[in-house]
Amino acid sequence: MLEFPMIPDSFLQRLNDYRSVIDNELLSLLDNHEPAYLYDPVRYVFSGKGKRLRPILVLLVAKSFGTPRKTAMPAALAVEILHNFSLVHDDIMDRDDVRHGLPTVHLKWDESAAILAGDALFALAHIELTKLGKYSLDCIRIFNEATIKLCEGQALDKAFEEINVVSLDEYLNMVSLKTGALISLCCQIGGIVGNTTSEKNAELSNFGRFIGQAFQIQDDLLEIFSTSKKMGKSLGSDVLTSKKTYLTCKAIKSNHRTWNQLLEDVSGQNMEQDVLPKLRKYFIDTGIAGSAKKDINNLVSQAKLCLENINSDGDDLLHFVNLIMSRKN
Amino acid sequence: MLEFPMIPDSFLQRLNDYRSVIDNELLSLLDNHEPAYLYDPVRYVFSGKGKRLRPILVLLVAKSFGTPRKTAMPAALAVEILHNFSLVHDDIMDRDDVRHGLPTVHLKWDESAAILAGDALFALAHIELTKLGKYSLDCIRIFNEATIKLCEGQALDKAFEEINVVSLDEYLNMVSLKTGALISLCCQIGGIVGNTTSEKNAELSNFGRFIGQAFQIQDDLLEIFSTSKKMGKSLGSDVLTSKKTYLTCKAIKSNHRTWNQLLEDVSGQNMEQDVLPKLRKYFIDTGIAGSAKKDINNLVSQAKLCLENINSDGDDLLHFVNLIMSRKN
Repeated sequence: MLEFPMIPDSFLQRLNDYRSVIDNELLSLLDNHEPAYLYDPVRYVFSGKGKRLRPILVLLVAKSFGTPRKTAMPAALAVEILHNFSLVHDDIMDRDDVRHGLPTVHLKWDESAAILAGDALFALAHIELTKLGKYSLDCIRIFNEATIKLCEGQALDKAFEEINVVSLDEYLNMVSLKTGALISLCCQIGGIVGNTTSEKNAELSNFGRFIGQAFQIQDDLLEIFSTSKKMGKSLGSDVLTSKKTYLTCKAIKSNHRTWNQLLEDVSGQNMEQDVLPKLRKYFIDTGIAGSAKKDINNLVSQAKLCLENINSDGDDLLHFVNLIMSRKN
Repeated sequence: MLEFPMIPDSFLQRLNDYRSVIDNELLSLLDNHEPAYLYDPVRYVFSGKGKRLRPILVLLVAKSFGTPRKTAMPAALAVEILHNFSLVHDDIMDRDDVRHGLPTVHLKWDESAAILAGDALFALAHIELTKLGKYSLDCIRIFNEATIKLCEGQALDKAFEEINVVSLDEYLNMVSLKTGALISLCCQIGGIVGNTTSEKNAELSNFGRFIGQAFQIQDDLLEIFSTSKKMGKSLGSDVLTSKKTYLTCKAIKSNHRTWNQLLEDVSGQNMEQDVLPKLRKYFIDTGIAGSAKKDINNLVSQAKLCLENINSDGDDLLHFVNLIMSRKN
């Protein structure tokens, strides 16, 4: 969707290796645990085809400061577990049916099982963090500060559903809490187990925040311009419910009459065949899609500036940015 | 309901002081936080008339090893926050309407607000635990192990709803996870900030487990023999839904025909005026209520034996046991 430099095959191969190690570690955490009502949903969460971008980011940041994969692994697992805990609970709140190509937990079991699985995941993440020796306490502190931001972001997201007009700044603040805080946490926690200075860690935190915002705006674009097969979830629903996205905030601000008219026109039509093509045309014709891409590029440039200030062995992180920004799902 | 020795007024006064300090600390944690969709429910949770028994237990255990209240306070707050987090989520799962005399969070706001408030509470509890200096990491480790037991207990409780016959042993195992683990955690965490030995902490853990089981069986009795005004919640519902209690497990085992017949007879009748009196008579006539009291007394005796082995300044803990075991709500 956006044009970014080529990514070396050797880097992609390493990411695949990381991913399969992370998958194995996640599943082995929960072997033979009972009762089934709790652990079947928990194991199920990790059987989905997650991209594991967040734990990979932790490992890459730690590696850029010379810290081996094995040392950083509990931190990487903790953020992936946190991410999945928040997805399981968010899916209940947002009544989402599909995640990573599978029925969501509350749909496959029930709401109680999903609430409980999320809670247990959160505790499991902390147990991983206690395995980081002298780094544990610092990691636990920022881990929970980030979790609170995540909750604040999700709360704003829900509160925005009740409001007609949300400014782009309000939306971006929500996104920086809901998505930016977690990506920022990945970078900071990688920095802590990488034993870096607090100045460099502050820069890593900014880097993560920029990438996180770019990632979310890109997600809002993909929600309209990708296909549900590629994304492994149904598309377009955010726009038609009262959920705010970068695109809808811009559309309401620039011309709320034509936007509301469009929503009225497509109401009840088939999503993939009718609604999405009309939305795509609207966002392209109004320049909103173009301005989203421009904002993403700006955020990515700012993120790359942060990397220059960190001065670590940052090639991998550059490749990582280019990779996630050229994703199609 | 049960006869226990008199409790000195000076001790009761100290507990009141503890309670008001804990209440103030809990409310001050959350002053001026936004967004309202997240923090109004969180503040609301602490505005209820909780008895604060768990944080008081932490403070008493720590004090019995000479650790001042101020030092132990973050640990005490953390367990109270954990307890409330689990209540908020359990109330969604169990569809309970009233808690501490107030409408439950999911009823007053909505389910999303309740899920989110619980999640934020869990993170806040951890932030308290990071304030315990050299004791933080040990506390965080057992705190999360206990949380996982809590989840396992709640999962068994939900799974038991789908099963007709649950043995008393299975029920007591569930109770030891769901209630025992948290009370055990209070004792252990008090021991850790009391800088005690691991042997004494193991004994504290057993003490907590016995008290926790006794507390839960007592809760099952109060659910039938107390009044909803005293309890600040509706009574009897556990028995009429398929939820298992000490009393129903015993009733099914001793004579499942007369028990099922009784349930059929009272179906649709007024809870306070008709159902509860009939259930009370049944449990008294069959000796089930008497055997519950006997089991409580045995568990309390075992708990008191643990205290003797710990050999700390344990008078307060004895008073505490006598106090909670003579509670009417």
